[in-house]
Amino acid sequence: MGPKLYCCPESGNCYKVRLLASLLDISLEKVELDFFHGAHKTPEFLAINPKGELPALVDGDILLTDSSAVLVYLAGTHPDPGSSKTPSNYWSAEAVEQAQIVDWLAFTASYISGSLSKARAFKAFNWPPNTSEESIKEAKARGVKSLKVLETKLEKSDWLALGRPTVADIAIYVYVALAPMGDISLEPFAAVKAWLERVKALPGYIPLTGLDQPF
Amino acid sequence: MGPKLYCCPESGNCYKVRLLASLLDISLEKVELDFFHGAHKTPEFLAINPKGELPALVDGDILLTDSSAVLVYLAGTHPDPGSSKTPSNYWSAEAVEQAQIVDWLAFTASYISGSLSKARAFKAFNWPPNTSEESIKEAKARGVKSLKVLETKLEKSDWLALGRPTVADIAIYVYVALAPMGDISLEPFAAVKAWLERVKALPGYIPLTGLDQPF
Repeated sequence: MGPKLYCCPESGNCYKVRLLASLLDISLEKVELDFFHGAHKTPEFLAINPKGELPALVDGDILLTDSSAVLVYLAGTHPDPGSSKTPSNYWSAEAVEQAQIVDWLAFTASYISGSLSKARAFKAFNWPPNTSEESIKEAKARGVKSLKVLETKLEKSDWLALGRPTVADIAIYVYVALAPMGDISLEPFAAVKAWLERVKALPGYIPLTGLDQPF
Repeated sequence: MGPKLYCCPESGNCYKVRLLASLLDISLEKVELDFFHGAHKTPEFLAINPKGELPALVDGDILLTDSSAVLVYLAGTHPDPGSSKTPSNYWSAEAVEQAQIVDWLAFTASYISGSLSKARAFKAFNWPPNTSEESIKEAKARGVKSLKVLETKLEKSDWLALGRPTVADIAIYVYVALAPMGDISLEPFAAVKAWLERVKALPGYIPLTGLDQPF
């Protein structure tokens, strides 16, 4: 039995995994949960993932509960299409490159999730419903700071971690692309916008519903 | 010229790096910055690290701006003391194990930093000075949730990511040990407390000022 991915269609974090699986031509056994009715908070799911979050990947004794780790797992254990070499170039066999990728995976968690992702979830889904105005204001301010950090990097290089696309780009792409859904404009960030287009042009790219038409 | 580490003595994130360097017997060229007088926000330092945060590691063209990435870099490029095998057992040469470690590094960024770390910085250093009561209350609630997730894991295994200590344990250890400085009691978390003692018993362990005597 292969790895089982617990996910939901609305989540950008789940989309990251589906996107990488498509880029690497990997078939996953998916279990879709109804996020807005709390299917990720049931005792049954909390017994699988005590964080009560999606996505989660289970492969025998292995449990991964963060999308970045799932990306490393998939890219680390599969080759690129047409190649027999593992890991895929979306990850690396070299420790220095692995550290450079982890640096941007950490940026996803410490910057993007609490800012662009949070602003979008509230604006688009009123989620979580009791979010304060102050909290949204802080999230938007940190979102703009995040975009400035990305712009500084992407003015000098085509991809975030290395001279090629990696799981770092896949992890950060979606909530940047969705920033306008949280009322954060991408217009001042030309290098970021050009990078979004480079991601969209990757062979095997699949869109997320709402990505091109923010609501 | 070897890698240069920008750090400050008060930061738990900087301590993680010093701790791992001690465990692996690595000498680092350190540049200590005066955090509380904003030495990490000067134009000179922002030109090095646009995030304006510590620690940061610079090695030629390579810039790492998150402590987790610095840990992977050091453990990935050095052997354990007495061994000639690289990477150290604090990291791994296996992609599946790397993903399991990254899962807990992501937990550090998405759970620990905004909760235990934030509550401690405010209580111990009044930092940042304009933090709202609501924000501290949220941080403490998420801190308790973080400890529950850790307790669930550590009731079943001695170490977080694998059957041995890894950079995941080093990344998460410090702000858990410092939780009482942020008025978050560790008393209800027996498995977490036993794990803290296991980390302290690692050969080469060094303490952080204030770690054993919270103020």
